[in-house]
Amino acid sequence: MSFKVPRGTQDILPDQSEKWQQVEKVLRDLSHVYRYKEIRTPIFESTELFQRGVGDTTDIVQKEMYTFTDRGGRSLTLRPEGTAAAVRAYVEHKMFGQPDQPVKLSYIGPMFRYERQQAGRYRQFVQFGVEAIGSADPAIDAEVISFAMDIYKKVGLKDLKLVINSLGDKETRDAHRTALINHFEPSIGEFCSDCQKRLEKNPLRILDCKVDREHPLMANAPALTDYLTEYSAEYFTKVKDYLDRLGIPYEVDPNLVRGLDYYNHTAFEIMSTASGFGAITTLCGGGRYNGLVEDIGGPDAPGIGFALSIERLLLALEAEGVALQEDDQLDMYVVVMGEAAKAKAVELVSTFRANGISADMDYADRKMKAQMKTADRQGAKYVIVLGETELEEQAVNVKEMETGTQEKVAFAELVNFVLQK
Amino acid sequence: MSFKVPRGTQDILPDQSEKWQQVEKVLRDLSHVYRYKEIRTPIFESTELFQRGVGDTTDIVQKEMYTFTDRGGRSLTLRPEGTAAAVRAYVEHKMFGQPDQPVKLSYIGPMFRYERQQAGRYRQFVQFGVEAIGSADPAIDAEVISFAMDIYKKVGLKDLKLVINSLGDKETRDAHRTALINHFEPSIGEFCSDCQKRLEKNPLRILDCKVDREHPLMANAPALTDYLTEYSAEYFTKVKDYLDRLGIPYEVDPNLVRGLDYYNHTAFEIMSTASGFGAITTLCGGGRYNGLVEDIGGPDAPGIGFALSIERLLLALEAEGVALQEDDQLDMYVVVMGEAAKAKAVELVSTFRANGISADMDYADRKMKAQMKTADRQGAKYVIVLGETELEEQAVNVKEMETGTQEKVAFAELVNFVLQK
Repeated sequence: MSFKVPRGTQDILPDQSEKWQQVEKVLRDLSHVYRYKEIRTPIFESTELFQRGVGDTTDIVQKEMYTFTDRGGRSLTLRPEGTAAAVRAYVEHKMFGQPDQPVKLSYIGPMFRYERQQAGRYRQFVQFGVEAIGSADPAIDAEVISFAMDIYKKVGLKDLKLVINSLGDKETRDAHRTALINHFEPSIGEFCSDCQKRLEKNPLRILDCKVDREHPLMANAPALTDYLTEYSAEYFTKVKDYLDRLGIPYEVDPNLVRGLDYYNHTAFEIMSTASGFGAITTLCGGGRYNGLVEDIGGPDAPGIGFALSIERLLLALEAEGVALQEDDQLDMYVVVMGEAAKAKAVELVSTFRANGISADMDYADRKMKAQMKTADRQGAKYVIVLGETELEEQAVNVKEMETGTQEKVAFAELVNFVLQK
Repeated sequence: MSFKVPRGTQDILPDQSEKWQQVEKVLRDLSHVYRYKEIRTPIFESTELFQRGVGDTTDIVQKEMYTFTDRGGRSLTLRPEGTAAAVRAYVEHKMFGQPDQPVKLSYIGPMFRYERQQAGRYRQFVQFGVEAIGSADPAIDAEVISFAMDIYKKVGLKDLKLVINSLGDKETRDAHRTALINHFEPSIGEFCSDCQKRLEKNPLRILDCKVDREHPLMANAPALTDYLTEYSAEYFTKVKDYLDRLGIPYEVDPNLVRGLDYYNHTAFEIMSTASGFGAITTLCGGGRYNGLVEDIGGPDAPGIGFALSIERLLLALEAEGVALQEDDQLDMYVVVMGEAAKAKAVELVSTFRANGISADMDYADRKMKAQMKTADRQGAKYVIVLGETELEEQAVNVKEMETGTQEKVAFAELVNFVLQK
């Protein structure tokens, strides 16, 4: 019998996990300075939440959800994204009643989509995201975009492109919708069956189709930006002004529509421009979702947010050849010779650790040479060798591995010695 | 339409999440000094892994698993515990071939058990756990126990009790099994139907039954400790010796059997003795599982580990009235008066944040008084008020909220001013 990690998922092994921890530290630190406090919602939610909150016509809801029935007969779905649950929590816990709006939330955790396997795509992946709910101020749109850009800068990425667009308001989208139907209807037979269904249901989604991406009608399709209402156009101008002020470069792409139904006004994506990064270059996507809170049973509170995948961030670091600073140093390895020395070693190792010094020893009764090799492989900064002589003298030579220098230190002084170095 | 968090699960809201982050910091720091590197396995595994790795006769596998079929027809289960997956990864990634054994792993993340709802029990809960695989050295048993105890001490808990036992080896358990059957068989009709099934399949599990806990035959049931082989008894003595050396107090409880099938030799639990902590006092459980790696398709590598629930750790903190130190301070709140000042405020807030200073401002165009109230509610350390005068002078009064003192500072000097304080 041999067991494997489920198809489409991966283990993050000990030699990889420190990179994740470093990225998470950056995310925690930025969430702190930007004041987006963490919320943790469950791994699964009622299926209906996603049908309502993500949108019935999306690929996610139609094809990619892990849906199951629990022992109590409820239909539950492993969360495919984070916004619906954050909004559900905002409504359920009546955060709209808090005096300070917008409520600024951040989250991090695994998401689940049953997708075709390909490089850099997993069926379980980790998203970090933020939501600012309760403000329709263009300045908060700029803040959210700035937060996303800062994450990539802080981890050391340079080859980035920010693309923004306005999807306008309801009036904008109705006018655009009619224009799209008029544009595609005469030739809809040349499109995939999904697009044919989309024509009536949600023609905007045709622009996001992965299959028909190269069809000539795509290039000259009516652009949303041509249908912006005065309010939408002004809103978009203000967002761009704030980005200019913050010195954040961007491109406006009228075809940027995002994969989820609920976006309006500001939409944005951050792409990697690193050479050899692969076909999917999007690192982060976000946008405004005025109306979603109401759809999920709350008041008419506007919102904006973004989500990014940690896996893709790590891939981008690799593509740019950026190494994160790792600090999981082994400070002290205790080599043991004999039963009596071992008992003392257990004590000393424990004392080191109690003082914040990372320490380890042998648990396989191996020869001294094998233990020294372990100390080396683990990158120990200091090594001590405990035998009968050391027990008698209550002192031991501390060897600094990098320089090879040794110094005799009394047992009682060991912790201070290491801490002072 | 109103949506709720799924039954038996909870949201960790922003005012609670910082406590979680503080506990996680303690866990990361201790994992670092103890050298247990993090592994992250998927949220779900093949159902068979848990049937094999947790045990077919356990309550977990029989009654409590979230099992479902994915779109590819695979039977998957949301992980009910962490050891089976860690061992699966140890085998799948051939960690047994690494030169340094034991391989020391830690993990943290949500686990899922469909249990009856009660205080302090959730169907999704977060476990932290460690596994040391590849060593049958009593010193590593002591290390693992010491690690668990250190976690509780480090967060500030005092009312703790460590209970240990030895479950012996296969020979021990076979002899004990026969004794248990002889003990319970004559009166098995007085026990619950689960226990009646357990009698033949796994009579040790009767001792762990929640229903029959008060039956008189429970108190004088044959104790495993009376059947320990010489090797087992010696092993247990050594573990206790190491604990004595480390100054870790413990009680030996011959009835401690743990809820999972795979344990042998050392088993332990850490309990809260805080008054009013409730009926379930166990905070952490662990033990040795020699044989499990082989059961899961690997070589004959011995292992030991523990798991603890963060939810219960937080409840214990509450019961003892211990508050974690929180450090999510808002350093600077920028009050804005007028459109021109707002544009400048967006810039200043961004500059503060870029320098690691947590900062926020108003995104609702509210009056000055309302903004001051927000600064107060959010516990801002400093406040500045930006209006036309300040823009002209390119300087602003910085008010320290605690003392009420003000000092005029040029825009260009603001960051330095705050950093130096």
